[in-house]
Amino acid sequence: MRVVIIGGVATGPKVAARLKRIMPQADVVIVEQGKVLSYGACGLPLYLGNLVPRIEDLMTTSAGILRDTSYFADRKGVTVLSETRAIAIDRAQKTVHIRDLSNGAERDLVYDFLVLATGAKPSLPTIPGIESQNVFTLRHPSDAEKLKALIQAKQVKHVTVIGAGFIGLEIADALASPRLKVTVCESQSHVLPRLLDLEMARGVESKMRSRSIDLRLGCQVKAIECDAEGKVNRVVTAQGQIETELVIIAIGVKPEVELACQAGLAIGSTGAIQVNDFMQTDDPFIYAGGDCAEQINLITGQAVYIPLASTANKQGRVIADNITGRKVEFPSICGTSVLQAFDLNIGRTGLSENEARKFGYDVITSLSSGLDSMHYYPMHAAVTIKLIADARSGRLLGAQVCGMGEGIKRLDVLATAIRFGARVEDIGGLDLGYAPSFATAIDVLIHAANTLENKSHDVVNSITPLDLLKRLQQGEEIQFVDVREKDEVKANPLNFPKVIAIPLGELRKRYREIPYEGAVVTVCELGIRAYDAACILKSHGFKGVCFLEAGTSVWKTLSS
Amino acid sequence: MRVVIIGGVATGPKVAARLKRIMPQADVVIVEQGKVLSYGACGLPLYLGNLVPRIEDLMTTSAGILRDTSYFADRKGVTVLSETRAIAIDRAQKTVHIRDLSNGAERDLVYDFLVLATGAKPSLPTIPGIESQNVFTLRHPSDAEKLKALIQAKQVKHVTVIGAGFIGLEIADALASPRLKVTVCESQSHVLPRLLDLEMARGVESKMRSRSIDLRLGCQVKAIECDAEGKVNRVVTAQGQIETELVIIAIGVKPEVELACQAGLAIGSTGAIQVNDFMQTDDPFIYAGGDCAEQINLITGQAVYIPLASTANKQGRVIADNITGRKVEFPSICGTSVLQAFDLNIGRTGLSENEARKFGYDVITSLSSGLDSMHYYPMHAAVTIKLIADARSGRLLGAQVCGMGEGIKRLDVLATAIRFGARVEDIGGLDLGYAPSFATAIDVLIHAANTLENKSHDVVNSITPLDLLKRLQQGEEIQFVDVREKDEVKANPLNFPKVIAIPLGELRKRYREIPYEGAVVTVCELGIRAYDAACILKSHGFKGVCFLEAGTSVWKTLSS
Repeated sequence: MRVVIIGGVATGPKVAARLKRIMPQADVVIVEQGKVLSYGACGLPLYLGNLVPRIEDLMTTSAGILRDTSYFADRKGVTVLSETRAIAIDRAQKTVHIRDLSNGAERDLVYDFLVLATGAKPSLPTIPGIESQNVFTLRHPSDAEKLKALIQAKQVKHVTVIGAGFIGLEIADALASPRLKVTVCESQSHVLPRLLDLEMARGVESKMRSRSIDLRLGCQVKAIECDAEGKVNRVVTAQGQIETELVIIAIGVKPEVELACQAGLAIGSTGAIQVNDFMQTDDPFIYAGGDCAEQINLITGQAVYIPLASTANKQGRVIADNITGRKVEFPSICGTSVLQAFDLNIGRTGLSENEARKFGYDVITSLSSGLDSMHYYPMHAAVTIKLIADARSGRLLGAQVCGMGEGIKRLDVLATAIRFGARVEDIGGLDLGYAPSFATAIDVLIHAANTLENKSHDVVNSITPLDLLKRLQQGEEIQFVDVREKDEVKANPLNFPKVIAIPLGELRKRYREIPYEGAVVTVCELGIRAYDAACILKSHGFKGVCFLEAGTSVWKTLSS
Repeated sequence: MRVVIIGGVATGPKVAARLKRIMPQADVVIVEQGKVLSYGACGLPLYLGNLVPRIEDLMTTSAGILRDTSYFADRKGVTVLSETRAIAIDRAQKTVHIRDLSNGAERDLVYDFLVLATGAKPSLPTIPGIESQNVFTLRHPSDAEKLKALIQAKQVKHVTVIGAGFIGLEIADALASPRLKVTVCESQSHVLPRLLDLEMARGVESKMRSRSIDLRLGCQVKAIECDAEGKVNRVVTAQGQIETELVIIAIGVKPEVELACQAGLAIGSTGAIQVNDFMQTDDPFIYAGGDCAEQINLITGQAVYIPLASTANKQGRVIADNITGRKVEFPSICGTSVLQAFDLNIGRTGLSENEARKFGYDVITSLSSGLDSMHYYPMHAAVTIKLIADARSGRLLGAQVCGMGEGIKRLDVLATAIRFGARVEDIGGLDLGYAPSFATAIDVLIHAANTLENKSHDVVNSITPLDLLKRLQQGEEIQFVDVREKDEVKANPLNFPKVIAIPLGELRKRYREIPYEGAVVTVCELGIRAYDAACILKSHGFKGVCFLEAGTSVWKTLSS
C-alpha cells in the first residue's frame, strides 16, 4: 500500500511515523516543497528573542538529531521528497503530479491513500507597498534568519508589527529592547481580539506599554511606503504615519487549500478543507489534517479554523489509524490557545463572552484574581480568570486566563472540564493538588468557580469592570468604598469622584459613614475583601451595594 | 441562630466566614483550644527551610493581616474563643461544655448547629523513649519555632526523621545541608508509600541520596534513647543504631475524634468521624469536616481518610451552605495529593496500581517520561507519568507524576478527567494548551495516554521497569538493544549482561546483528526511540521484542 503525504512539517511527519509503526509494510512518501522538514514554527519568536540560540535547534529532536531526509528514511522508514511540489491531484487515477524544484523534472506518484497536510500561509493585507524590501512575515525558519540577520547587521532601530494576535505579540515581546523600538498596530479595539475579551486584553496592553511598546489600537494600516532603494521607511495608517525600518506582518494565517480546490475537494465555510470525524475529505481516499483543515467546536458543534501544532499532531495520529483500518474519530476541540508574552501567561478555552452571546446563551460571567500559590511561598504570582457559563444550565462555556502566575495549569483543567460538559459547581468541587508551592488552599480556579456560583445564587451582587466603566461613562453617580489597608490606598489611590476609604476591619463599626441610598461599590485589590465588605453592607440594609470583580487588579488596566 | 464551631484552623474559619456572608444575622462562635488561629500548617516545612522567613507569615492573609481574634470579630463578624477547650457535648440539651484554659473557668454554650472541625494530631509510634527531650512532631507553629531555635542555637549536626511520607520528606528537604546531616527511617520498602508505587518512589529516593540524605528503607525503629540529661542521643532500629541529636516523628496523622466519641457520634472504619454527603454526622444538628472527618473515594465509593487543607476548605463551604438551608453535597474525592521536595514535583490522584488490583480491576498501566515544554525552550525539564486504567472499560483509575518538570499541571488535568469518568482515549484527545514554553506539541500527558492506548491495542509490546527487574532477577536471559546515540551510551552505559548498542538511525540496516530468538528489549533514554526500535524489529520478524517503558530515566533509579 502506498500512502502519499503532501506536507512535511507537523501533521505529515506524524501521519508517516504512526503509519510505519502500525503498518511497517506500507510505502509512505512525504512530498515537501521546502528544504527543511518538521521544524518548530512555534519556536521562531523564541529564536528572534535569543531564547533559542540556533535555528537548527528548532529542527532537531530532543535527542539532538536533525530531522532531515535521512532521519525519516533511517529512523522512520519514510521516503521524503523534499524541494518537491505537488502540482495536481488526479482523483480518478489516484495519482499526484509532482515537480522536483531542484531540476524541474515532473512525474506522477500513484497513491492508495493521499493525505493533505499542506498547512497554512500568512494572511497579507491588501495595501500598497506590501512587496517593499524589509517587509516580512514569520512562518518559516528562513524568515526568522533573514529578520535576525537584518536586525543584527543593519542596526535597525524601529520595527513595526502589524497585528496584535498571537504571533504579533510574541514577535513584539522578542524584539522590544532599549535599542530596538517596537510599534504594534492592531485594527481591532484590543490586543489578541480572537483570543481574549476586552477586559482581559487590557491587562496585556498594560504590560506591553510598561515595556515601552508603542501600541496603537483601532489602527487601520493604509499603506507601506519605501525609499528610493525600495526599502520600507514608513507605515501609513488612518491615524497617522509611523517612520520605521522594518515591518513584520502578523495578521494571522489562512489555510493552504490551492491543491484541494484544484482537485475539487469540498472547502468548508471557514475556508479550510472540510473533513468528517475521521479526517476524511469528501473523497474517501483523501485525508486532510493540520493547518489546512477545519475543526469542529465542541460547544457549538460548528466548524472553526483554529490552526495549532497540538491539533495537527493529534490529527496526524488519527489519520494514520484510519488509513490502517482502525476507525478512530478526531474529537471536537475547545479551541484552547495559549501564549507567553511580556512575562504573562495568557490563554483561552471554549467560547469567549461575545461568542457565547452570539450563540444565544444566557451568559453569566465572573472575573476573579488570586495567587497561583500561597502568599508566603516566595515565588507566588497573580492570575486573573474569567469564566463564562450558561446561566440556565450552569454549564461552563469558556474561560480566559492572564497573569504572571501559573494560569495555563488552570486553563488546562478548565479545557478538560469543558470537554466533559462540566457545570460551574463541578469546578468548585474539583479535587486539585494542593501544596503551598502549587496552589492556595482554595485554588484560584476553585475561587473563580465559587465567585460565579455566588453570583448565580445572589449571595451578594457584584459588578464587572466593564459594566462599571459603562455606568461611570453614562454619568451615574456611584459611591465607592475602598476597603484596602491604609498603606495600599496610599500607594495606589483610586481616582473615583466619590470614594471613601474604610479598611475592611473597620467597616462593621464605620458603615454609617456611607450614604445608604444609591449605588455603592466596594473595592479592594483582588475582590476578596470587597466581597466581604459588600456582604457586611448588605446585612446593614444597603440595597444598592455590590463589589467590583477582580478589584483594582483588573480595573487599573481598564481605566488607565 | 447560634452556630458553634469547634476548631479554628481551616474548616472552622471557612464555615464561619461563609455562614456570616450568607446569613449575617447568625451568631457564630469558634472555640479553639490554641492561641493561634487559621495558620498555614502546610507551610511549616518551608519555615524550617527558611523559604518562609517569619512564622507570622503563616498566620496572616495575603494582604498581611494577622488572623487573630479581632480579625475574625472585625472582618468576619465571628466570635472566637481562643485558648478555650470544648470538653463535652450534650446532644439532648444542644450545649457544648467549654473550659477557658487561661483561668480554668467552665461554662455551657448553647448551639442550634454544632460543627466539629477538631482536626488531626500526629501519630506516634509505640516505642520507648518517645518522651525524651528533642523528640518532635511538626504540626503546630510552636513545634516549628522550637525546632528552628534548637537547630540554630545548639548547633545540631544530625537529625533523624522517622517516616518518609509527605511531611517527613518535606522536613528532610528543608533541613538537609552540608552542616546538618539527615537520616530518614521508613518502615516500608519505599518512600511515600501511601502516595506512590515503588517504581515512581525510586526516582524520589535517588534524588534524596544525591542530596546526601541517609535513607533507610524497611527500617523498623525500636526505641529512642537519651543521655543522662534526658536528651535524645540515639535511635535504635532493627537494622542498627543511629547516633543523633534530634528526632522528628512524621509517620502521619490521625483524626482528633475524642469529643465526637464522647458524644456518641458514629466513627467510620477509617477512624475518622462518619459524615453523609451533606457533611452531617449521625446527629443532624452536628456537622463535621476537615481533618477529623472521613471522605468517600470517587472510584471505589469507599470511605477513606486523606486529610488535606484543600478538602477542609471545600467542606467548610459545604457545611455552611447546608446550615443555611441550601442542600449542597460535598463530592467524593480523587485523593489528589502533591508535594514539592528535593526539587521534584510529586503527586498522585485516584488509585495506585496496588489499590486498583486490590479492588479487583483488570489493571493496565503505562509509564512514560517526557519533557514539560519544548526541548529548545530554555527552562524545560522532564516529567515521569504513570497511568493506571481498567483494561475492560478503558476507564482511567489513577495517575502518579514525579520529576523536576511541571507534573502537577498534568496531575490536575488527570484528577479532573477522573472526576468525569474519563477513559484513556479521552485523555489522548484532550485539547490542552500548547506553546513551546508550556508543553511539547504532543503534551507529555497526551503521550502517556497514547502509550497506554498503544499497549492495550498491541501496537508493540512494552515492559515495565519492575517487570524487567523481576525477569532479570529470575535469571532470564534478555538481549538488550541500546538505541541511543553513541555519546549518550558512552556517558551512561547500560550495565546489562547482554547488550548491543545500535543507534536507532542504524537499526534498519543493522538489525541482523541481533539474535532473532528469545527476549529482546529495546532501550533509550525516555522510551520514545525504543518504541520505534521495537516496531522496526517486530516488522523484521522479532517475535519476542518489546521496549522498556520510560527508558533509562526510570530504570537507572530502580537498578542502582
